[in-house]
Amino acid sequence: MSNKIYFNTASIDKLEKQLRVHLINSLGGFKSVALVGTSDNQGKTNLGIFSSFFHIGANPPLIGMIFRPSPPERDTMRNILNTRFYTVNHINESTYKQAHQTSARYDKEISEFDATGLKAEYKNNFFAPFVTESAIQLGIEFKEKIDISINNTILIIGEIIQIYIPENCLHKDGFVDLEKANTITCSGLDSYHKTVQLDRLSYAKPDKKITSLLKID
Amino acid sequence: MSNKIYFNTASIDKLEKQLRVHLINSLGGFKSVALVGTSDNQGKTNLGIFSSFFHIGANPPLIGMIFRPSPPERDTMRNILNTRFYTVNHINESTYKQAHQTSARYDKEISEFDATGLKAEYKNNFFAPFVTESAIQLGIEFKEKIDISINNTILIIGEIIQIYIPENCLHKDGFVDLEKANTITCSGLDSYHKTVQLDRLSYAKPDKKITSLLKID
Repeated sequence: MSNKIYFNTASIDKLEKQLRVHLINSLGGFKSVALVGTSDNQGKTNLGIFSSFFHIGANPPLIGMIFRPSPPERDTMRNILNTRFYTVNHINESTYKQAHQTSARYDKEISEFDATGLKAEYKNNFFAPFVTESAIQLGIEFKEKIDISINNTILIIGEIIQIYIPENCLHKDGFVDLEKANTITCSGLDSYHKTVQLDRLSYAKPDKKITSLLKID
Repeated sequence: MSNKIYFNTASIDKLEKQLRVHLINSLGGFKSVALVGTSDNQGKTNLGIFSSFFHIGANPPLIGMIFRPSPPERDTMRNILNTRFYTVNHINESTYKQAHQTSARYDKEISEFDATGLKAEYKNNFFAPFVTESAIQLGIEFKEKIDISINNTILIIGEIIQIYIPENCLHKDGFVDLEKANTITCSGLDSYHKTVQLDRLSYAKPDKKITSLLKID
């Protein structure tokens, strides 16, 4: 293994700003990345890429995400707070460049759907637009906003109220095969990755050997 | 593409409990997964696997994670709140089975380091133990606890105060090549994946074509 570089608070503080942003954004590991679709009350759509999703609980089904106060994230958050509904749409190998392009600072008048060519789709009376090209689509209802005062960011918690999954990706035990759905992951600010499954492992118990769930079928 | 299955709140509510847990845990996409190392004030160590990390900000360098009130997560959180320090250690292809095993409900007397054979390592006066086998290791200082009342979970925010990265994984612009560090990702409750980089993309601007950062070198 290669030698390690060591940073402490003093050496982190000395880093040039952009370098520090790349470094710190990389450290948490591979991230959940998806497109958030919203609309304002006049029907003007917005689409933004986010990589700060996390599972909060299954009952009720809650998903969290972090917002920064700067554009373009601000536009997405305003729509969520004003209309209470948003969609989370997985990104795949054929859409990640368009998804990345949604992070450009477009004028408020321009919809990122139009700018990138991704298609908006409305269904089952859900207020916000889904991304047609996404295999896995979630319809979310806003539940709670928590201010994180330490650095002026905002945690938005929503309940998953609509789920669309390709039939062949849903296993009998509820597990969703994201790889089969071509869902990708990201690292840092700008790196996109597909995945190769290593294994699914059995529920861990003390004094019991873990087994592969893939060999049971 | 395969036909889609549609769930709404009514059909989600009807799902058998374990099936719902697998389903909802899968929906956010691939997750940051890592081992959290802690110690109590008597020096008894604890090691737990978590998949709820997210980036909160680069300046100060903040990382968030969600805790459930149940064991074994409770033990890790108690150590963090009592001692204020913890480590986040990336998982790779040779350690993910041991990492998964740390989720078993061991007696409080048993250290998951001993139970799984992963090695604890102390350095640079950091209070909590790092995992020797992890290529990327972070030393974190507790900053803030936020109760999420909607489902009795807890958000813990910490500042990254020590960073260890293999020299050959750190790019000049600050980007960390997690793939070269063999860091893996997970999906759902029990599925582990390695990654294959698709590309790094240039900073997005309106009316400018995205280019690959990998071809510039």
